[in-house]
Amino acid sequence: MFFASDNASGVPPQVLDALVRCNGGYEMPYGNDTVMDRVRARLREVFEAPEAAIYLVATGTAANSLSLALLTPPWGAALCHTLAHVQVDECNAPEAFMNGGKLITVPGDDGRIDPAALKATLGRLVPASVHNAQPSALTLTNTTELGTVYTPDQIAELTGMAKAAGLATHLDGARFANALVSTGATPAEMTWKAGIDVLSFGGTKNGLMGVEAVILFDPAKAKEFELRRKRGAHLFSKHRYLSAQMDAYLEGDLWLDLARRANASAARLATGIEALPGGRLMHPVQANMLFAEFPAAGHTRATAAGAVFYNLRDLNGGSNLGARLVTSWSTTADEVDTFLSHLRG
Amino acid sequence: MFFASDNASGVPPQVLDALVRCNGGYEMPYGNDTVMDRVRARLREVFEAPEAAIYLVATGTAANSLSLALLTPPWGAALCHTLAHVQVDECNAPEAFMNGGKLITVPGDDGRIDPAALKATLGRLVPASVHNAQPSALTLTNTTELGTVYTPDQIAELTGMAKAAGLATHLDGARFANALVSTGATPAEMTWKAGIDVLSFGGTKNGLMGVEAVILFDPAKAKEFELRRKRGAHLFSKHRYLSAQMDAYLEGDLWLDLARRANASAARLATGIEALPGGRLMHPVQANMLFAEFPAAGHTRATAAGAVFYNLRDLNGGSNLGARLVTSWSTTADEVDTFLSHLRG
Amino acid sequence: MFFASDNASGVPPQVLDALVRCNGGYEMPYGNDTVMDRVRARLREVFEAPEAAIYLVATGTAANSLSLALLTPPWGAALCHTLAHVQVDECNAPEAFMNGGKLITVPGDDGRIDPAALKATLGRLVPASVHNAQPSALTLTNTTELGTVYTPDQIAELTGMAKAAGLATHLDGARFANALVSTGATPAEMTWKAGIDVLSFGGTKNGLMGVEAVILFDPAKAKEFELRRKRGAHLFSKHRYLSAQMDAYLEGDLWLDLARRANASAARLATGIEALPGGRLMHPVQANMLFAEFPAAGHTRATAAGAVFYNLRDLNGGSNLGARLVTSWSTTADEVDTFLSHLRG
Amino acid sequence: MFFASDNASGVPPQVLDALVRCNGGYEMPYGNDTVMDRVRARLREVFEAPEAAIYLVATGTAANSLSLALLTPPWGAALCHTLAHVQVDECNAPEAFMNGGKLITVPGDDGRIDPAALKATLGRLVPASVHNAQPSALTLTNTTELGTVYTPDQIAELTGMAKAAGLATHLDGARFANALVSTGATPAEMTWKAGIDVLSFGGTKNGLMGVEAVILFDPAKAKEFELRRKRGAHLFSKHRYLSAQMDAYLEGDLWLDLARRANASAARLATGIEALPGGRLMHPVQANMLFAEFPAAGHTRATAAGAVFYNLRDLNGGSNLGARLVTSWSTTADEVDTFLSHLRG
Repeated sequence: MFFASDNASGVPPQVLDALVRCNGGYEMPYGNDTVMDRVRARLREVFEAPEAAIYLVATGTAANSLSLALLTPPWGAALCHTLAHVQVDECNAPEAFMNGGKLITVPGDDGRIDPAALKATLGRLVPASVHNAQPSALTLTNTTELGTVYTPDQIAELTGMAKAAGLATHLDGARFANALVSTGATPAEMTWKAGIDVLSFGGTKNGLMGVEAVILFDPAKAKEFELRRKRGAHLFSKHRYLSAQMDAYLEGDLWLDLARRANASAARLATGIEALPGGRLMHPVQANMLFAEFPAAGHTRATAAGAVFYNLRDLNGGSNLGARLVTSWSTTADEVDTFLSHLRG
Repeated sequence: MFFASDNASGVPPQVLDALVRCNGGYEMPYGNDTVMDRVRARLREVFEAPEAAIYLVATGTAANSLSLALLTPPWGAALCHTLAHVQVDECNAPEAFMNGGKLITVPGDDGRIDPAALKATLGRLVPASVHNAQPSALTLTNTTELGTVYTPDQIAELTGMAKAAGLATHLDGARFANALVSTGATPAEMTWKAGIDVLSFGGTKNGLMGVEAVILFDPAKAKEFELRRKRGAHLFSKHRYLSAQMDAYLEGDLWLDLARRANASAARLATGIEALPGGRLMHPVQANMLFAEFPAAGHTRATAAGAVFYNLRDLNGGSNLGARLVTSWSTTADEVDTFLSHLRG
Repeated sequence: MFFASDNASGVPPQVLDALVRCNGGYEMPYGNDTVMDRVRARLREVFEAPEAAIYLVATGTAANSLSLALLTPPWGAALCHTLAHVQVDECNAPEAFMNGGKLITVPGDDGRIDPAALKATLGRLVPASVHNAQPSALTLTNTTELGTVYTPDQIAELTGMAKAAGLATHLDGARFANALVSTGATPAEMTWKAGIDVLSFGGTKNGLMGVEAVILFDPAKAKEFELRRKRGAHLFSKHRYLSAQMDAYLEGDLWLDLARRANASAARLATGIEALPGGRLMHPVQANMLFAEFPAAGHTRATAAGAVFYNLRDLNGGSNLGARLVTSWSTTADEVDTFLSHLRG
Repeated sequence: MFFASDNASGVPPQVLDALVRCNGGYEMPYGNDTVMDRVRARLREVFEAPEAAIYLVATGTAANSLSLALLTPPWGAALCHTLAHVQVDECNAPEAFMNGGKLITVPGDDGRIDPAALKATLGRLVPASVHNAQPSALTLTNTTELGTVYTPDQIAELTGMAKAAGLATHLDGARFANALVSTGATPAEMTWKAGIDVLSFGGTKNGLMGVEAVILFDPAKAKEFELRRKRGAHLFSKHRYLSAQMDAYLEGDLWLDLARRANASAARLATGIEALPGGRLMHPVQANMLFAEFPAAGHTRATAAGAVFYNLRDLNGGSNLGARLVTSWSTTADEVDTFLSHLRG
């Protein structure tokens, strides 16, 4: 009953097998390994993007920070949601990689940027003036930090406004697979067809040990990205071990299967909580993360039984509790049901 | 016959086994995994340093750049050898992590900093003046970039001068194990007993997939290092997979065994080259890397047979060739002998 | 009728005289000039701070950015008002000098930080976690960006909360003199007695060519500031010309006299606008800057007659106009009255 | 008898007059003042560069650091002489403004970069590799740090090599006027006709209070420079006071006249020292700075009489002294002769 984060799960056996398989003999370092050739080909096919430049790094922090730095000069601003992971949870890593570039926050309900708020923010930033940060990039998160999902149309509306104002666009896809299977859209529809220039394609939260891909749909800045990655300490000498994981992730659509499992567990959890007396979902549950309130007594019972998750705050004078619950590919129906039974008491 | 770099080798089976072993169930993220507790205990014991703060990162670039940044403010200078990896091969990653701190180079034969040159450099930098970079850190590399090794006494002489001038000290130990088994000294004698404050303890070149430890013998700046690591995009959520590798590396002194194998192969290679007509070692061979010259005809034969290594330059009017040859834990006596037979023709 | 900014005014004759006076002979460079000794003594006396470290720089951007960088590490956050000049109008200079440190905004009416909002923000930032920016500094602006003034008590309330949470405190005093004469408090009461650690003591907007003092009430970080100033390209070789201006500014309380003149002009303007049919002040007018609305027709007449000021926006369906009007030491009663007569029509 | 530096001198009366003249009324801030229009026109004419973008900053540190940052990305290297001011005397300001870009030093006699050494350095830096700093800019200093002067041909030889390798070029002209009048070349011949892309056109050492121009002969990066200047805290609100100084400097070729006076004093000093028993010039004296040795007894006498200059080191077993002596526009023949008389005893 571990619902604190999807990053506490292990990896599926296919990933371990791939590591064993790639281990023999010598391989050229720094991304010149033969497995990486296959990864590039596969991702280009998955995203219908034959020209895309594709790179692997080992943390989501690196994927997002390098991507934002590619799109935002030190005197620029990247616009993000008020709750965006890059704004709230990265100890200034984006600012470090941007060499002092700025994040400017834009509000919106349920973790999604509100188009009207984006319009207002863009209106305040004057590119002709040297006094304000130069508006440079828009970054969206899908699955959002509140467990909701942007549809391709919603993405396109926001990127359209950004591009009209001259901004480049980035998608933080730490939970991209969960969003994708939630909408039923194609990878291309969820990204470049909806106006996304650069994607952080998450692997870690969805079953890898520590591998994320950065996909530049327009390869014009590919060499610059390579230099930034090296300077950012994320060019791996024994790169084959990143490639092999990503290769296994794509093989036979394993990544989609893992995400479907996690989403199904979240849905099962959501249904159960809504059925509780006093249970209520705080945001729509569309992927593998839910924010819910339920009676504090249930929380006490579940915690005593070993359940792990984040409390948000007391509600309703303390009789209810707000909680964040995250499921992963390895969450079982049993875990969910046992947890719900403790909530019910 | 792959002698281009030790980073083209795979990993020993113990490392793969450890990944499989650690994979089950949930583990707390970000270094709070239970395996990391054992790694910390083991490294403290190996280094006779019960107070040391110990962190894992995934690349040598990160280990060195974060370490130098911890010791060198943006207005400071870290002194390093003219050929140091941090100076020559890191695409300004150290400067990036130091937020613009400066590397100042100090010459010396055979890859080792010359004490007289260090003294002269320290004499030129005036801490009381705001006009020059403030002398802040000394960084040594052991095994050096030319395949030689500093003894504990040689390290102590240089760190003594540095400390007398108020500098902190760092050791780039990307090939620390190779240097250690070469000297026969203890890990403590090669580091803190010789005046080293911070060690980049290499794992990757000596048999891991991509894991390095940073060891702060004085834990006073431990929290600052944690913040720098997070901001530097090297705090891993699924940290257990780094821990498990390092754990296997230390278990039963595997790391020393791997380094001995690599050094033995280099020695075998050196003996063979010296025995060649026209063969000559350009620097003493003390670890797992050698710089040698030998007849160009031998080079042509070896390359045609599939040998891979770096050419340095033509010598002796083109009839001889300078080459860099690196062995690893997985280099076999057969490979060495076959290569030598091609050189002999 | 120039009300666009106080930085479009010239300097009083005393400042020019001081430049002429200090021009003869040789003077030691870099702040070692004899005039600077007098400036230091005078500012320490004015602020009742005999231990204060005092430095001159040439722009407000430099004064604020260096001050924030002194108090906020690259992984830290400086809290500021949503409209703070450092947040809105400095093209990321604070972030540049902080090496990627972050500004986090806190709202509040009339340009002042709301204590409850500050409490909430401090509550969200957890110093024990490496995931969020570390709360490091609070910066206030007095005179605020909306022309209001913090009293010493209001400052003390905010700095008290900040200090209880371990933050250092900075005051952006680009218009410090205007705030000071507005409250009638002493310089000490408006700064260190109210919990301010570092002050940007403005000179430029109040009558100098381009000189600001940075005052560290606690001199512990004085040497670090000197290194930051040099590295920040604001250590002047011919420093005497900065010293002489600041000296003239302090001599005979010229600075207070200049500020009183500017504030009086603003008050005269405010009274006149309030008396207009349709005239209304948008924020209390407490120093030398006012935000007002008045009929658009008056705006048309005044502009046609040569008045210069910032339009904010149309109000009341376009019949009214919001405007920002700034007075300076050199604004005359005549200018104000002529402007008002155009507004009246 | 002040020969420590040219930055200890005052300014000529024309500069003070210009400040008084520009002081009346309102002027638009931030470089939009009317005097600046004239400065731009004058500098474009002086340099025969009608398209040049021209900016003023207040320190040489800013002029050089902003210029290098414009030409060198964070992963790049700017090549400079071993003794270059940017390398030795700027407390990492260039690295700060370059966001961690690197200076790589190239040796050469008499303060000039040796073409063969430049060739070797360029040969070592491989733009195709992500492992080394990317060679990006060459910066020369004229007058050099050893008081010698590059001719246009010497500049062109070095910039030609740099440009063939894809580097941009910068000239640190803190003492540009002194070099110019020494060679008799035109400003255009000394800069863009000799392959210089960006010039730091010094004013401060040659008679201004603190004003340097940055001249971009190719204006393509003009907007980027404006953003960098603002972010670098060197955009002045009361810009007219910088403009007025530069305007007076150019009016009637005052700048050339001032430089000729300084150079003449240095020549007089050089002639006198060479005529001393034991006197010797350590480098050719071509501008306003000389490095000389002379008997220590003379040094003692001169110092006792109030002369100020930098000792370099004892020579010839202590009986001789090496010294750096700098003259300025305000140095008089009397001062020189009196100093020489003390040396003679």
